Amino acid sequence: MASGKEDVKLLGVVGSPFVCRVQIALKFKGVEYKFLEENLANKSEQLLKYNPVHKKVPVFVHNDKPIAESLVIVEYIDETWTHNPILPSDPYQRALARFWSKFIDDKIVGAAWKAAFTVDEKEREKNVAESLEALQFLENELKDKKFFGGDEFGLVDIAGVFIAFWVPIVQEIAGLQLFTSEKFPKLYKWSQEFLNHPVVKEVIPPRDPLFAFFKARYESLSASK
Amino acid sequence: MASGKEDVKLLGVVGSPFVCRVQIALKFKGVEYKFLEENLANKSEQLLKYNPVHKKVPVFVHNDKPIAESLVIVEYIDETWTHNPILPSDPYQRALARFWSKFIDDKIVGAAWKAAFTVDEKEREKNVAESLEALQFLENELKDKKFFGGDEFGLVDIAGVFIAFWVPIVQEIAGLQLFTSEKFPKLYKWSQEFLNHPVVKEVIPPRDPLFAFFKARYESLSASK
Repeated sequence: MASGKEDVKLLGVVGSPFVCRVQIALKFKGVEYKFLEENLANKSEQLLKYNPVHKKVPVFVHNDKPIAESLVIVEYIDETWTHNPILPSDPYQRALARFWSKFIDDKIVGAAWKAAFTVDEKEREKNVAESLEALQFLENELKDKKFFGGDEFGLVDIAGVFIAFWVPIVQEIAGLQLFTSEKFPKLYKWSQEFLNHPVVKEVIPPRDPLFAFFKARYESLSASK
Repeated sequence: MASGKEDVKLLGVVGSPFVCRVQIALKFKGVEYKFLEENLANKSEQLLKYNPVHKKVPVFVHNDKPIAESLVIVEYIDETWTHNPILPSDPYQRALARFWSKFIDDKIVGAAWKAAFTVDEKEREKNVAESLEALQFLENELKDKKFFGGDEFGLVDIAGVFIAFWVPIVQEIAGLQLFTSEKFPKLYKWSQEFLNHPVVKEVIPPRDPLFAFFKARYESLSASK
């Protein structure tokens, strides 16, 4: 358990699902922190110093010790501020939480992103199919639980913020039907519960500017076809 | 801590670096298990039942509860049999161990594999460059420690068995210089220490048949150019 004078910083950008994961974890734990907004077109010295390997956000800095990779950061936060657990205590349930959060990163984030932003038609179709297949696995895994973590949200739910908030935006822009209430009723219900959770509601970025940002990106890609 | 009658199974193939990671962890903990050899050209009902998502090995089955993904399995083993720790106890050191083992999977396994087995010359060059850049980060991270984990090996060392044992084989077959003692003296010294560790020595697959297997694969790829 952390104690005493804490220096907690998060290097990030508004609108990144990976940064948002860390913000949800911190808000859930009630940890105060300083948000340092990065300009990814002109990365700060601080970002390059703290994450020389990937040079990406989020970077979490606790008492001058930096950590990168959103899921690694969330586990660190859970182990450092141990109230309001994010991972279950049972080793097998912990393993499943790690498995499914990795599954979201490996099988959904990239595929859904490429489905929306790939110009090549064949490549797009392939990624649509892969996204749908992966979402079906999650739909089955959720069963009739409120959250993947059970009655309260946990690691998989936090990883899944990309599905709950970002996928609906990018699929609307690209005119795709990836994650809909008809195709995935349980997962859709979960997404509404999750986005309406008081902790999540408070840190989710505003939808309209994000929509405009991704729309501009989509249009510039389509124009360059 | 696990106790009582244990049913411990590992579904795997000899010659897989991911299966080998789990074998190292089990041997290090002194956990007895049954090794169930899979034929990946004709996957067993058991594999499809226990890992319906990826249909891949390794799958670890503890008292009929299955877990997939080698690093998730290794963490589960560490949390279940808590003697001879694989992850450090300090949350920050744990985060670093997770970061670097993920780094090996994300930045080295794929790149080194493609560097050896890609027929396209440009693609090969790109992957050689990426492998070298990633290995340099590991060389810098190792510093003058015996193992990434310190005096005893840990998660990053176990993840790195791919670098210590598999990369030298595939680079020799493909006539590449990726991981050499000249380029990466510290990492090379680490690899020798690691491969000579009594636990690792006992579970590393025999080199010659593996070499022949990959050589045949390389030659059939080159022939299909």
